[in-house]
Amino acid sequence: MPAAGKIVVPGFRGGGVWCGIRKSRKPDLAIVVSDRACTSAVLFTRNKVAAAPVVWARGLASRSALRGVVANSGNANACTGKEGLSAVRRISAKACRTLGLPDGSLLVSSTGVIGVPLPAGKILAAVPRLCASLSPAGIPRANEAILTTDAYPKRVVRKLRVCGGTVTLGGIAKGAGMIAPNMGTMLAYVFTDAAVRAADLRKVFREAVDLSFNRIVVDGDMSTNDTAAIFANGACGLPRLEGKDLSGFAGALRELLLDLALMIVRDGEGATRVVRISVKGARSDRDAESAARAVATSPLVKTAVFGADLNWGRVIAAVGRSGTAIDPGRAEVSFAGEKVMRRGMEIDPQAVRRAVPKIRKQAYGIDVDLGLGKGSYFVFFSDLGHDYIRINAGYRT
Amino acid sequence: MPAAGKIVVPGFRGGGVWCGIRKSRKPDLAIVVSDRACTSAVLFTRNKVAAAPVVWARGLASRSALRGVVANSGNANACTGKEGLSAVRRISAKACRTLGLPDGSLLVSSTGVIGVPLPAGKILAAVPRLCASLSPAGIPRANEAILTTDAYPKRVVRKLRVCGGTVTLGGIAKGAGMIAPNMGTMLAYVFTDAAVRAADLRKVFREAVDLSFNRIVVDGDMSTNDTAAIFANGACGLPRLEGKDLSGFAGALRELLLDLALMIVRDGEGATRVVRISVKGARSDRDAESAARAVATSPLVKTAVFGADLNWGRVIAAVGRSGTAIDPGRAEVSFAGEKVMRRGMEIDPQAVRRAVPKIRKQAYGIDVDLGLGKGSYFVFFSDLGHDYIRINAGYRT
Repeated sequence: MPAAGKIVVPGFRGGGVWCGIRKSRKPDLAIVVSDRACTSAVLFTRNKVAAAPVVWARGLASRSALRGVVANSGNANACTGKEGLSAVRRISAKACRTLGLPDGSLLVSSTGVIGVPLPAGKILAAVPRLCASLSPAGIPRANEAILTTDAYPKRVVRKLRVCGGTVTLGGIAKGAGMIAPNMGTMLAYVFTDAAVRAADLRKVFREAVDLSFNRIVVDGDMSTNDTAAIFANGACGLPRLEGKDLSGFAGALRELLLDLALMIVRDGEGATRVVRISVKGARSDRDAESAARAVATSPLVKTAVFGADLNWGRVIAAVGRSGTAIDPGRAEVSFAGEKVMRRGMEIDPQAVRRAVPKIRKQAYGIDVDLGLGKGSYFVFFSDLGHDYIRINAGYRT
Repeated sequence: MPAAGKIVVPGFRGGGVWCGIRKSRKPDLAIVVSDRACTSAVLFTRNKVAAAPVVWARGLASRSALRGVVANSGNANACTGKEGLSAVRRISAKACRTLGLPDGSLLVSSTGVIGVPLPAGKILAAVPRLCASLSPAGIPRANEAILTTDAYPKRVVRKLRVCGGTVTLGGIAKGAGMIAPNMGTMLAYVFTDAAVRAADLRKVFREAVDLSFNRIVVDGDMSTNDTAAIFANGACGLPRLEGKDLSGFAGALRELLLDLALMIVRDGEGATRVVRISVKGARSDRDAESAARAVATSPLVKTAVFGADLNWGRVIAAVGRSGTAIDPGRAEVSFAGEKVMRRGMEIDPQAVRRAVPKIRKQAYGIDVDLGLGKGSYFVFFSDLGHDYIRINAGYRT
């Protein structure tokens, strides 16, 4: 379990309270807000059944000048009809009013069970207390309040030297189940005191999300609620980032999101190991992605990883059914750096013996070389063990 | 566990022996052969990584005049290179020679672990004993010899009145893991004493497979070895089936294959329940199929079915990520005949209460109506429970 540290980002305050959605008295309502105007960028789930807060936010006049977020756990506010939408509008409006912000300045997110009406009254009643809980040291408390089946909070802070000064990036996230193509039931927020033009922020954020949250698979399901957002308030007092400084910021953002993404996949429901499946030599990047995702979502591969079973046959069988162009006679497979299959066959029992202890570790790589072209792709996935069943067979009831 | 009965089909003999591939002394080598010439049809896995027996059979000059099959369990003969292909050729040739049949009269199948060289010597040495074990009552023994992680054998016999006489259809199968789109690690053979033109047999067999073996999902993986074959030897002495008689035969064949398919999905690795997911009101049949298969392979849906959790939110979320056109506000979902979601929301707590005891049964239906068009599709799937993990995390090692 990674240590969950402090996060202070100049000009941002965070807080969290228990508003009564969850039975246990753990915080279930979070807020983080900037003291000054921001540029912002938000990305949502591609699931066509989107939760009310996602539908509402997509309809906002501007998603590039948001100043923060209010988020609840314990209820997804998905499949809740017009009441659900109305609840989102009222929650955002009340929080904005309480903080003296223009209407529409605050994003709303929800995570939890689908199809149960959101107890909007409890949230609305708690908004004054929530806003009163805001403090510069309170971002971790907001992090705690968005967790659901997470075994631990996910947060990272990075500092970056630019323009002769320092900017800070702080990220908080929750994950656990439904982590799969194009983000899972995943909420992630990044706060930075850098000054970044809205269009630049959108571009670097989208690229960083594609290389992090879109590269992790827990169970292949995709949530109705996934949201990732970034807020940049310029409180560092340095000039707006451009050119080399913007590239440096983009790199730090990619690393920060990858750290959060790996924390999410490591904490996949019931996960005991994380494997990086890399496919190269494919006819195209798209082919490589299909192959990598077929391996990452294969229950037979995932149970073999759980059982520390060096079962390259299941890996190549998953590639074979993925639709990817493959000539088994040219394919090679390595586990933890040991080439265990070459020309479609197991040819080196020594390599297998060397690999066996390595695949008992918590993290390793599986590499597939199709030997057909230059397409490549990678994705991180967790294994499928007994705890996944235990957690998910009884989540709702 | 369904009773596994006798199967006698006039003109066919079956047998099985232990040849030493499996450590336990259970039969691991099967044979069924017709005493006279047959018409035949064979369908294979669509996995691009196909096992040696599949590659070999695809290259046969004629797959419409096969007279039977030799099959082993305990080793898939997949990813075994040229040696694997050569082993298939020698096994078929030796069995044909021993029985005095023309070379290429016998199909070969394998099921078991991938990537381990087939112990061809053990099989070849056992061929004389295998052929000596042939008897009219021996088809069930062949059935036993092809099982792997199956909890019970799968076999069905049906009789049909046609042309003023009776024809018999007998089917044997094995299943358990890797059961998914387009057949799983599934071997299924049907033997009939009807006389059917090869082209007609191919057509009715393909249609029947599409409505049975291609409609079951255990884990979404697809095997390298799947094979379904039918052999018709005309031993009933009745005229070749045509017109209405052929239609009657096709109907009986569909029912027989559906019986076998349901036995396979009920015996899915670790399965405790079987659910029929039906999608209607889709824009197209293809859309309906995508939606149904997304639900059938969703780990979150499957664990909820295992836990008897009436979680329609996971069902609609799986449809939402399937790529199928959906307007959540028009969608309806029923569990076990009780409409629990209408217009994208849970509106009737009474219906939920009525459904709860029904989803504790071993079999029920989930119906999704998208309200957009006339497309429909159904598929049967098993749940995902602890035993799936137990079986698959330690299958090979």
